[in-house]
Amino acid sequence: MAVFDWSTFLADQGHTNLGLPEVYGGGGDVGASIAAFETLALGDLSLLVKTGVQFGLFGGAILHLGTRVHHDRYLAEIASLELPGCFAMSESGHGSDVQSVGTTATYDYESREWVINTPSDADRKDWIGNAAVHGKAAVVFAQLITGEENHGVHAFVVPIRSDRGKVLDGVRIEDVGHKIGLNGVDNGRLYFDSARVPLSNLLDRYGSVTESGEYTSSIESPTRRFFTMVGTLVQGRVSVAGAGLSVSKVALTTAVRHGESRRQFGPPDGGEEVPLLDYRAHQRRLLPLLASTYALHFKQAELVRDLDLVFSGAEDDEQARRSLETSAAGVKAFATWHAVDCLQTGREACGGLGYLSSSGFASRKADAEIFTTFEGDNTVLLQLVAKSLLTGYREEFGDLNPIGMAGFVATQAVSRLVERTAARELWGRIWDEITPDSEEDGDLNKREYQLALFAWREEHVLESAARRLKGGIDDGIDPFEAFNACQDHVLVAARSHIDTRILEAFAKGVELCEDETVKALLERVCDLYALSVIEQHRGWYQEHGRISSTRSKAVIRNVNALCDELRPQACDLIDALRVPDCVLPEFGPGGIVG
Amino acid sequence: MAVFDWSTFLADQGHTNLGLPEVYGGGGDVGASIAAFETLALGDLSLLVKTGVQFGLFGGAILHLGTRVHHDRYLAEIASLELPGCFAMSESGHGSDVQSVGTTATYDYESREWVINTPSDADRKDWIGNAAVHGKAAVVFAQLITGEENHGVHAFVVPIRSDRGKVLDGVRIEDVGHKIGLNGVDNGRLYFDSARVPLSNLLDRYGSVTESGEYTSSIESPTRRFFTMVGTLVQGRVSVAGAGLSVSKVALTTAVRHGESRRQFGPPDGGEEVPLLDYRAHQRRLLPLLASTYALHFKQAELVRDLDLVFSGAEDDEQARRSLETSAAGVKAFATWHAVDCLQTGREACGGLGYLSSSGFASRKADAEIFTTFEGDNTVLLQLVAKSLLTGYREEFGDLNPIGMAGFVATQAVSRLVERTAARELWGRIWDEITPDSEEDGDLNKREYQLALFAWREEHVLESAARRLKGGIDDGIDPFEAFNACQDHVLVAARSHIDTRILEAFAKGVELCEDETVKALLERVCDLYALSVIEQHRGWYQEHGRISSTRSKAVIRNVNALCDELRPQACDLIDALRVPDCVLPEFGPGGIVG
Repeated sequence: MAVFDWSTFLADQGHTNLGLPEVYGGGGDVGASIAAFETLALGDLSLLVKTGVQFGLFGGAILHLGTRVHHDRYLAEIASLELPGCFAMSESGHGSDVQSVGTTATYDYESREWVINTPSDADRKDWIGNAAVHGKAAVVFAQLITGEENHGVHAFVVPIRSDRGKVLDGVRIEDVGHKIGLNGVDNGRLYFDSARVPLSNLLDRYGSVTESGEYTSSIESPTRRFFTMVGTLVQGRVSVAGAGLSVSKVALTTAVRHGESRRQFGPPDGGEEVPLLDYRAHQRRLLPLLASTYALHFKQAELVRDLDLVFSGAEDDEQARRSLETSAAGVKAFATWHAVDCLQTGREACGGLGYLSSSGFASRKADAEIFTTFEGDNTVLLQLVAKSLLTGYREEFGDLNPIGMAGFVATQAVSRLVERTAARELWGRIWDEITPDSEEDGDLNKREYQLALFAWREEHVLESAARRLKGGIDDGIDPFEAFNACQDHVLVAARSHIDTRILEAFAKGVELCEDETVKALLERVCDLYALSVIEQHRGWYQEHGRISSTRSKAVIRNVNALCDELRPQACDLIDALRVPDCVLPEFGPGGIVG
Repeated sequence: MAVFDWSTFLADQGHTNLGLPEVYGGGGDVGASIAAFETLALGDLSLLVKTGVQFGLFGGAILHLGTRVHHDRYLAEIASLELPGCFAMSESGHGSDVQSVGTTATYDYESREWVINTPSDADRKDWIGNAAVHGKAAVVFAQLITGEENHGVHAFVVPIRSDRGKVLDGVRIEDVGHKIGLNGVDNGRLYFDSARVPLSNLLDRYGSVTESGEYTSSIESPTRRFFTMVGTLVQGRVSVAGAGLSVSKVALTTAVRHGESRRQFGPPDGGEEVPLLDYRAHQRRLLPLLASTYALHFKQAELVRDLDLVFSGAEDDEQARRSLETSAAGVKAFATWHAVDCLQTGREACGGLGYLSSSGFASRKADAEIFTTFEGDNTVLLQLVAKSLLTGYREEFGDLNPIGMAGFVATQAVSRLVERTAARELWGRIWDEITPDSEEDGDLNKREYQLALFAWREEHVLESAARRLKGGIDDGIDPFEAFNACQDHVLVAARSHIDTRILEAFAKGVELCEDETVKALLERVCDLYALSVIEQHRGWYQEHGRISSTRSKAVIRNVNALCDELRPQACDLIDALRVPDCVLPEFGPGGIVG
């Protein structure tokens, strides 16, 4: 029960509903709500997810998919946690592919009610947070059916427990069972057997039904309607990205401080032993991850700002929304994989002491593990990013079926598919100055050159993926085969796009820094990030004649030199992440105190 | 208590002491004992470690470091688990650097006893399995002191609990606390405050003390004596390597079977959904890991055979022993990192279902996590491998201080340091046939060409690391700085050495296969392993002019083609690993049954 009590405490303090409108007791500030979520993610992750489900997903669905009547009826009770609720979207048979969910909501013309059903076990709602123990209501995503007609997936408010906690008629609930982590969250499965709710329980912002059973919607295309509904949930991905970033900050703070204080092996003459962080191999493990954490920090800040602009209505055109959805998907994938990396590398860098639960790695490793899967499997998300790019944001963002994309691409000219980046002009100039086999190591630390290398890769990979996809279809290959033959290539296109956006955000952040000393330090951290990424892809850059073998070796040399240069300031860079001591282990002269 | 009861059951069945001599109730078969350990590693890993400590480490230390009197006194009771015991080597302040342990065993001339002491908290024995609850005795590694003289680290049998389980005078025991995993093992900390044991409790195979306190040893050099003693423990590393390999087999069996049965997304025309494993991205995640598992399987079999030869005395020259120690260190590092990879990738590939504890990933991820640290931190082990290579096996294997190595290397000619591999002759021929920019994709599947690429890299990296190390010292750079400036390079040398040995073992294993159909299949798996490794290092191969950019792209293409080709047989390859159903989750039409 502890986690629910913590949630109540936070709700009582007014810390968890910054994103809800002020009239219902919220803070009316979406950006601040994400910042609060990122802060909470430094601590216990079951609490994070439990509150995320209640205030972000359950509350967010009612706010964004419901209308005035729903807001009046539910939001204040959600904000105060009087009404604990669930967000019942995923099903056992369809985790990623929400458009295909099997749950039905059929309109009963006589009683003027919705009848909710789970046709088969594969259609049960699965992994639903707050379902197994605390939830009293759920927002249920189901196929809306009037008469013989299916109007596609819509959201309904369905009570599941009485005020006293008894499961209601027509509802069956199971616990999903013990999990690797997040066992403080009561994930459950929901089955509906003719559960009945009034007509008005349809969240009808994008589609409503009259008493006589007539369906109307402001959005004509059912596909577009569906993706508009799902699109309002982009906030969840931005939140998880921020949480992943917070977890990586805790992991690296632990590992770097341990590496600074723990000493092993001394000089042969018997002098003092050497701090782990003085060893190049140790620097190589931790400092590029630290640089990536900084890079993601700047990108995440940009993403939260964009989310706030779109959701506050300050900037809500279609293009801004699609670009936000694409960034959120990509950054979520990157930040959560990064969290797993930082936890694994950090634990190993702390040796046995990192294996003690008291070091903090135990629960974070177990809990954050699922970040790479929930709110969208990372590989599926990268596919969505690629799709946005390959269709020039013209196809609906959320449509996950990758096979359709191949068909769309085939109908377009490659030149239309791949938008020319602004970087193109930059290249002309940069490539004149710096040839692929230039011997000048110093060039590598020029930001413009780094940006040009990133952007060039992005465009080249995207364009060749488009050509291959199109070529396959033109040659009459089956669309699945055509897609599948370059799926790896398509994923690289997504990755290189996100890589570039991250470097741009970091570079912009550094530019804006007003303190010259701090700025100079950040410049070097940004160099380390950029060169580490180029180092990872140096095989590709050589394959495409963009850097020579000589320059490729220089990249490795420069990464080493940057590790060396940044090592004395590693602890300052960590301190600046401001992870509070209360979520960290204690450190002594031998590192983490066991 | 469960895990101890399981251990007792296994001991009663005679399954756990295959490695102990027959006269004491054992099986007298070292190779079989490792095979048993590898089998046990398919199941519960706390049980594995608990029995490993008892029969492998505790029993092994008494067997290898003790003499007849100790064998007679202890081995039968160890084999039957009447005497549960500990292996007390690591200390809080010195995990990896055993030569520097602080615990002392001082000879008391009057009482003819050893007085065991823990001088400071940093010298407490830490992480000792069987210590916190069950152990009645411990083999304690301590500095042997007679009069004023320290004869270096030796092992002593020290009782720690009475038969009724009461902690004895002079001994203090703490639990290390809750851990990420392996909580079925009672890891503890031991402090000694003038604990007294008789003279004969010194395990005196390599050094003994007379009643009058005179020290004698068959090995004159104290350093060599120490490393001979520690060397007998190579069995632990071979065992952990095998356990890591078993864990990776379970993880991949789960993930591949899930990928075969779970379907997501269908063709746009609404046909049947596609099994996950049909997607290239999914194949790319799992099949190269499967190929590496096969490769490691063959290398591990070779390692176990070598261990058996050395320990049975069939092949016990210095060179065979050092080569075994080097292989064991490298394969342990590779196999345990591989296990972590397979668990992480496998869990992600199973999505949410992999997050349920019932899928088996939960406990294995938590338990196997520490495999990369215990029995030698993997990075430290790779450094040992590099040291063996760089000193031509002339320096003591176990001496971990990397800084001394730089000094040794400086005194030698590079040509003496880097042994010319037999592959050299091969190259002349292969390079004549296949030029770096040949356009023939087919060349890539020639085993000789793959072996030549691996061996060429190995020798090139090692030679250049030796040159840099030597160059640094010759230039008068401080030995630590000289070592540190190429630590990353030195680690690459170790890795490329192990890569090559693994490919050689796999290739040899395929050669010996008598069934032509199976052999043909294994050839392709071996190709996938070899080309995946070359793909990882294609940046390096291009930097060194060994493959052209054209050929580098062909490597990627061939890895894709091999994934495609092997996909239909993925389940056969998994079945052949023979992971028993009882350690796997249940599979249904939707994949893992949750």
